[in-house]
Amino acid sequence: MKRVADSTVRRLSLYLRYLEDFAASGSSTISSEELASRAGTTSAQVRKDLSVFGSFGKRGLGYDVAELTQKLREILGLEHEWRVVIVGAGKIGGALALYRGFRQRGFPVVAVYDSDPRKVGSMFESFVVRDIASLAADNRREPADIAILTVPAESAQEVLDQVVAAGVRAVLNFAPVQLHAPDHVTMKTVNMAMELEGLSFALKSLGNRESGSAHRRAKTG
Amino acid sequence: MKRVADSTVRRLSLYLRYLEDFAASGSSTISSEELASRAGTTSAQVRKDLSVFGSFGKRGLGYDVAELTQKLREILGLEHEWRVVIVGAGKIGGALALYRGFRQRGFPVVAVYDSDPRKVGSMFESFVVRDIASLAADNRREPADIAILTVPAESAQEVLDQVVAAGVRAVLNFAPVQLHAPDHVTMKTVNMAMELEGLSFALKSLGNRESGSAHRRAKTG
Repeated sequence: MKRVADSTVRRLSLYLRYLEDFAASGSSTISSEELASRAGTTSAQVRKDLSVFGSFGKRGLGYDVAELTQKLREILGLEHEWRVVIVGAGKIGGALALYRGFRQRGFPVVAVYDSDPRKVGSMFESFVVRDIASLAADNRREPADIAILTVPAESAQEVLDQVVAAGVRAVLNFAPVQLHAPDHVTMKTVNMAMELEGLSFALKSLGNRESGSAHRRAKTG
Repeated sequence: MKRVADSTVRRLSLYLRYLEDFAASGSSTISSEELASRAGTTSAQVRKDLSVFGSFGKRGLGYDVAELTQKLREILGLEHEWRVVIVGAGKIGGALALYRGFRQRGFPVVAVYDSDPRKVGSMFESFVVRDIASLAADNRREPADIAILTVPAESAQEVLDQVVAAGVRAVLNFAPVQLHAPDHVTMKTVNMAMELEGLSFALKSLGNRESGSAHRRAKTG
């Protein structure tokens, strides 16, 4: 199968969400136009995205909701659960450890790690914080599929190296820094300050700053 | 100025981060090759990204670190602070309210809102939770530039409509749902479960599932 763009995979996730909503409404078929309008794209794009993975839908009849839902779950690898560990027992790690959406979508958080000896062994939400040094041994007994890094920028690369050495092959990084992982490891970075900078750029470009508040305050920091 | 792609803006943010690190090391010039290698791109891409905004750098000498830093801050709209409000006084909202990176990058969180009468008026980190119904009036006195939505999916569109009606023009949405905003509002969505689905897709596509744990457990949910 050829390399599939991240943007395509994101749309597949969106389609799956709408199909699930749609199934809850009791409908059994959906047109590519309907799926497209809910996902903010075109019906041609929907058909193109799905054609990569085979032939779906019947001309004039649209897609069978149950069948396409099942197929998308297979394509996205969601017929099984993936075990998630959180590395970094801070505020963001805590919020993510409690995030119900992960378990609901098939990504149960099974353990929380930290390198701070003051945190290791303490309760953190419903978890006892484990020592990051034990990740490799834990992983041999009960492999983790995905690690979510919620550590400070300064230690993020070192922690990533430990996670990779322990055999974890997929990483979601929340540390505000670009990390380097070997090719066999898939990594995504969520950088919240960079998302805000994207909004800042848009506000400034659109000249919205005039009607906002920023022009009244010089930056003091 | 022509429309600038999101991916370009993200790279500008990355360049700025590396320039700041670089300045801390005491160096006064940097080559496009060096900037590129740190940002995981090519020197041609660096020059192309920057050329959109004018002429920088001297052939054979590279970029002046202080000058390019300043210019990138201007381009990204970071010479001023942007006032941020968090809407949704839950776990993720709390983690973001405390996130130091926002203030450091020029995005101070100035208020937290919720619609739940049991939360309104209570302390939430260092904030007293305000009623979302008061956002429009608050916004006339002290405009908020950016709203971060950390509300459940079910209420997210209604909350977004309130935020937009209050005059906020930029939104970072953490609710796991696709929202619809008018054209004059810039919105970005961070969907953490979708990021994990992207990793799941990669793990499955790469056949890594065999060496992971998922094949041993059928999904029970």
